[in-house]
Amino acid sequence: MEHVSKKIKVAIIGASGYSGVELVKILLKHPGVELAHVIGASTVGQRLDSIYPIFRKKTDLVMEPFQMDVLKTMDVVFLALPHGEAMKQAPELLDAGIRVIDFSGDFRFKSPELYEKWYDVPHTAPAYLDKAVYGLPELFKNEITNCQFVANPGCYPTSAILALAPVFGLEYVATDAITIASMSGTSGAGKKAKLDLIFSEVNETVKAYRVGNHQHTPEIKTILERVAGKEVNLAFVPHLLPITRGIYTTISLPLKQAVTRETVLKAYQEFYRDAAFVRILEDRAPEIKFVNDTNFCDISVAVDITQQFVIINSTIDNLIKGAAGQAVQNMNLMAGFAETEGL
Amino acid sequence: MEHVSKKIKVAIIGASGYSGVELVKILLKHPGVELAHVIGASTVGQRLDSIYPIFRKKTDLVMEPFQMDVLKTMDVVFLALPHGEAMKQAPELLDAGIRVIDFSGDFRFKSPELYEKWYDVPHTAPAYLDKAVYGLPELFKNEITNCQFVANPGCYPTSAILALAPVFGLEYVATDAITIASMSGTSGAGKKAKLDLIFSEVNETVKAYRVGNHQHTPEIKTILERVAGKEVNLAFVPHLLPITRGIYTTISLPLKQAVTRETVLKAYQEFYRDAAFVRILEDRAPEIKFVNDTNFCDISVAVDITQQFVIINSTIDNLIKGAAGQAVQNMNLMAGFAETEGL
Amino acid sequence: MEHVSKKIKVAIIGASGYSGVELVKILLKHPGVELAHVIGASTVGQRLDSIYPIFRKKTDLVMEPFQMDVLKTMDVVFLALPHGEAMKQAPELLDAGIRVIDFSGDFRFKSPELYEKWYDVPHTAPAYLDKAVYGLPELFKNEITNCQFVANPGCYPTSAILALAPVFGLEYVATDAITIASMSGTSGAGKKAKLDLIFSEVNETVKAYRVGNHQHTPEIKTILERVAGKEVNLAFVPHLLPITRGIYTTISLPLKQAVTRETVLKAYQEFYRDAAFVRILEDRAPEIKFVNDTNFCDISVAVDITQQFVIINSTIDNLIKGAAGQAVQNMNLMAGFAETEGL
Amino acid sequence: MEHVSKKIKVAIIGASGYSGVELVKILLKHPGVELAHVIGASTVGQRLDSIYPIFRKKTDLVMEPFQMDVLKTMDVVFLALPHGEAMKQAPELLDAGIRVIDFSGDFRFKSPELYEKWYDVPHTAPAYLDKAVYGLPELFKNEITNCQFVANPGCYPTSAILALAPVFGLEYVATDAITIASMSGTSGAGKKAKLDLIFSEVNETVKAYRVGNHQHTPEIKTILERVAGKEVNLAFVPHLLPITRGIYTTISLPLKQAVTRETVLKAYQEFYRDAAFVRILEDRAPEIKFVNDTNFCDISVAVDITQQFVIINSTIDNLIKGAAGQAVQNMNLMAGFAETEGL
Repeated sequence: MEHVSKKIKVAIIGASGYSGVELVKILLKHPGVELAHVIGASTVGQRLDSIYPIFRKKTDLVMEPFQMDVLKTMDVVFLALPHGEAMKQAPELLDAGIRVIDFSGDFRFKSPELYEKWYDVPHTAPAYLDKAVYGLPELFKNEITNCQFVANPGCYPTSAILALAPVFGLEYVATDAITIASMSGTSGAGKKAKLDLIFSEVNETVKAYRVGNHQHTPEIKTILERVAGKEVNLAFVPHLLPITRGIYTTISLPLKQAVTRETVLKAYQEFYRDAAFVRILEDRAPEIKFVNDTNFCDISVAVDITQQFVIINSTIDNLIKGAAGQAVQNMNLMAGFAETEGL
Repeated sequence: MEHVSKKIKVAIIGASGYSGVELVKILLKHPGVELAHVIGASTVGQRLDSIYPIFRKKTDLVMEPFQMDVLKTMDVVFLALPHGEAMKQAPELLDAGIRVIDFSGDFRFKSPELYEKWYDVPHTAPAYLDKAVYGLPELFKNEITNCQFVANPGCYPTSAILALAPVFGLEYVATDAITIASMSGTSGAGKKAKLDLIFSEVNETVKAYRVGNHQHTPEIKTILERVAGKEVNLAFVPHLLPITRGIYTTISLPLKQAVTRETVLKAYQEFYRDAAFVRILEDRAPEIKFVNDTNFCDISVAVDITQQFVIINSTIDNLIKGAAGQAVQNMNLMAGFAETEGL
Repeated sequence: MEHVSKKIKVAIIGASGYSGVELVKILLKHPGVELAHVIGASTVGQRLDSIYPIFRKKTDLVMEPFQMDVLKTMDVVFLALPHGEAMKQAPELLDAGIRVIDFSGDFRFKSPELYEKWYDVPHTAPAYLDKAVYGLPELFKNEITNCQFVANPGCYPTSAILALAPVFGLEYVATDAITIASMSGTSGAGKKAKLDLIFSEVNETVKAYRVGNHQHTPEIKTILERVAGKEVNLAFVPHLLPITRGIYTTISLPLKQAVTRETVLKAYQEFYRDAAFVRILEDRAPEIKFVNDTNFCDISVAVDITQQFVIINSTIDNLIKGAAGQAVQNMNLMAGFAETEGL
Repeated sequence: MEHVSKKIKVAIIGASGYSGVELVKILLKHPGVELAHVIGASTVGQRLDSIYPIFRKKTDLVMEPFQMDVLKTMDVVFLALPHGEAMKQAPELLDAGIRVIDFSGDFRFKSPELYEKWYDVPHTAPAYLDKAVYGLPELFKNEITNCQFVANPGCYPTSAILALAPVFGLEYVATDAITIASMSGTSGAGKKAKLDLIFSEVNETVKAYRVGNHQHTPEIKTILERVAGKEVNLAFVPHLLPITRGIYTTISLPLKQAVTRETVLKAYQEFYRDAAFVRILEDRAPEIKFVNDTNFCDISVAVDITQQFVIINSTIDNLIKGAAGQAVQNMNLMAGFAETEGL
């Protein structure tokens, strides 16, 4: 069959983390992709289905070490590593001409100073910052389609930016002081043996964390400023919830003049008319369960009863639209597949 | 012993709902109280420990019907009924000279029109609205101490008002457009067989609901306006979480000028210096697990890294400080006990 | 393409229940199937993506009423109805020559008396009991392949029977008195507005229910007796857990003589050598998370340290291998697809 | 008041673990106790209300190091340490004449060999094994009342032994091969930063663990053999559940002859007639939520519909009746308080 000859070869570095595993699940079913290698560090030599028995009878992949000899024949390499690690491996891959999609925060800013301020580590590959395209296809599809290197957005920023992008075109909304309250499931914190992540500590409670200084704040701000064409001031308050997956974001902005919900709704529908993975809900607020295990971002708008505020709610699966699914959406654009292929 | 002779006699109408049951638990241990009667409707004749086996070997109370003959010998009657029901029973009890503490929203406003607009039922006892004191002891202790009739605050309003009350005295905070994002456990929705409350629907998800038109909005607004001495405009966005108990509230307000966190912290500590049940956390954001099963409201303040926003987080147990515990705190004031007795 | 012309047309009656919805998800992706109709009762006229927004941008299906005119052109009809309802609709469909796969307990016994004893309703279609094949492909593949009518197994029976079937061939295991302890997520109880299913009642607790008299007991017993070729005596104890999906089953049987785990393991591996959807875990006990959202049944065996007991654990997704997935596995066999197609 | 002069002084070693914290909560309210010292290791110098903010405004206790000078004035010392640690500290305390209640498994056996086989560490204080009384007051009240040293039972053994103790007096029950299936919340695994305990790994799943070789097996066996006066063979299968607290135990035993549920029920009620903390439920199976935050063990019995099996369910709060509450019950007996004081 012709299809087989068209398959691109891809590898995942960091395949055993939570985002990496979701990426494996998607790529194993993607008709245009051969998942050729899964790369790890402490897990080298282990079968993936031994680390995650859900893969039994699904794949025989074995975790391999990072080897450029192997990787240089890949069409696309995904870096599903923590920040600080990705910038060590991306340059070599890029220099070899491979397309790279990076899940970390390492290449989401243009300024190394900004990175260093918020991530608190020196940036070791500043020359590559300019090569990276911010991989939010709903806003930057053309750039992504023609690039070699994608900085895949953070999970919180994806939900916040998609919720807010249309608002800067609405002259009746005040956007000078924006507060974003977001809630995330625990998988967003990664697969780490930390005491404050154990079930007994997380279950049946909620906490805000990194209040006013979370590293996703400048990412949201920078991208929104590109969209708005002006400075954007915002506070971002993340919360940890006792659920495994999903992000929920709530934003309220003062109205300069009364409007109806229908007016705002129409503006959002228009803004996202061609977006395959954004769904504007007309009749209800979104719920995490509507989007989990999908690549959709669901958004609703409301105007409060006094017509003084517009309220925007959005939700995504943090591991799919907030990580692995969005990465595949970017890969599809870069490799010439339909944007929705395999998603 | 003298203690025995000092015990006051109390009854609970609506003792088998979630708030009612927490009230039973507290009153059974309260040294100054004899819980004489538990009143129900569909449950009449059932032992309380048959409805809630956690009470086995703890109490022999049996659910009784509403009978004024019995109730008129009570010192205090608690109405733990849904809104719309309380206003049917409160007048008769008040006319009989009994102290009444009402958990519902029926007597929290002075204006029957405001009530009817938000609760969507006609008010059948408007003459009694002026008799009711809003039972938030941290703000209205004197009034409560000397009154016959308390309208016990709503759960969301308790957490929001306590978080915001100090802010109107801070000249460096802009308070003209306030957004309150709150999250609640399912017990706040009561013990009702509704499809959207079943475990399979609620688990592993989050949703905002009644966005921009929740009935607690005017309650928060009215009380804050008393505190602020001016009109207060606010949007209130409640969310349903997959936890049983607890409310978490997050508020962010623009700063008019840069301040340090310490400055705001001191103002809050000063404001609540004499409040037995408010704890200002100096070193972290609050968590629901710090307050569940207690009558405390925990509050933290933060200033974002750019010093443009102050962020306030508060948390309560919705069934204790948001209902039964606060009611007992009010009873303690009304009956001359120490404010913290039994709590 | 040829593929298109080979698609079979199917309908689901009861498509908006939890099992029905999982069936919709599977069939929408099944390459050999056109999901032509979704049939409901109280939901007629509603879009499926309005009832379940997860289907937005995925399907335009609208709930229709039951109409034989429409159904008689179907190749396969799935009945995802509660027991008592299925027996009202199955006869007409069968008489019209349509293949039927029934999710309920209505046709799992050969004896109407047995049914009536455990389900406590009269059987209104006893003449059709003999036509039904018990749809557990791992044990009855040939019968299923050649039949018109499948009684799809119960969720608990699937996990219990698959765990126990191999044991009757092991002469060193005592099988005269078997206890099966099973735990289920709440979706097994269906989408019903019942007070004892609401989140506040189910969360953070466990209960055994219908202890010693659950209606799945005779189903397990009858099928195991077919396997064993002798009478089988068993107690079945189901438990409700605060999770949405999954069943976990634990069985322990006395050994007549000491054996090693390896011996038992080999026997199980041999028994299920050709079973596409059974995975025997060599190195650990199964976990629900290994099988959720899959059609697998994972099984482990252990011998206790004193070599006096063999302990068998099994787990399935109650909505997939315990309902919708198994139904599609059966459909695949009946319609000539590969057994694993679309699963 | 005289009461004050009668207060005994107690200390907790290991006060910041989950069992230790529950013990602090109980002792702070116990009218006959002064909680004089909380002892830790890595936490020395920290305020208890900094580690657990739920204690803010409740106690000013500060974690102290282990110092015999301080401890020798105590009336009772609780050891809430992991196994292996307790046996290092118990001897010195006992030699100083202090009453000791040990939460660990270190002193629950009489034979050091048995301990070493199951706990896989050498026993360093074998001379003290004979001094320890197994602290299950429902079975060994007299011994406990008159002893200096209590080995507080394990959580699983408490629920299993209380469920099974009456059964050996019932001639119609076969007790030669007993299987105990138990399920536990995560707090039973302690406050440890282990990867398989993090929320993302535990949530929405169930697993059996240490199948057939859990260290509580010989504890249950040894104590039941004392009760039964004969050898008892059993398999014990523990499961980890996604709840924080509670243990649920299910046992099924073959009947030698048919009996009614009432007969078995009466036997259980009779057996536990004087037990303040055992509740035999007549009309339903127990649920974890009936006992959480209490010192009760709830037990039900059932006979299956064929009258071939008796099924016993029991439940406790693993941190209260399974640890801290039972320890206080033991302390009450040792110190001459009413058995239920403070519980």
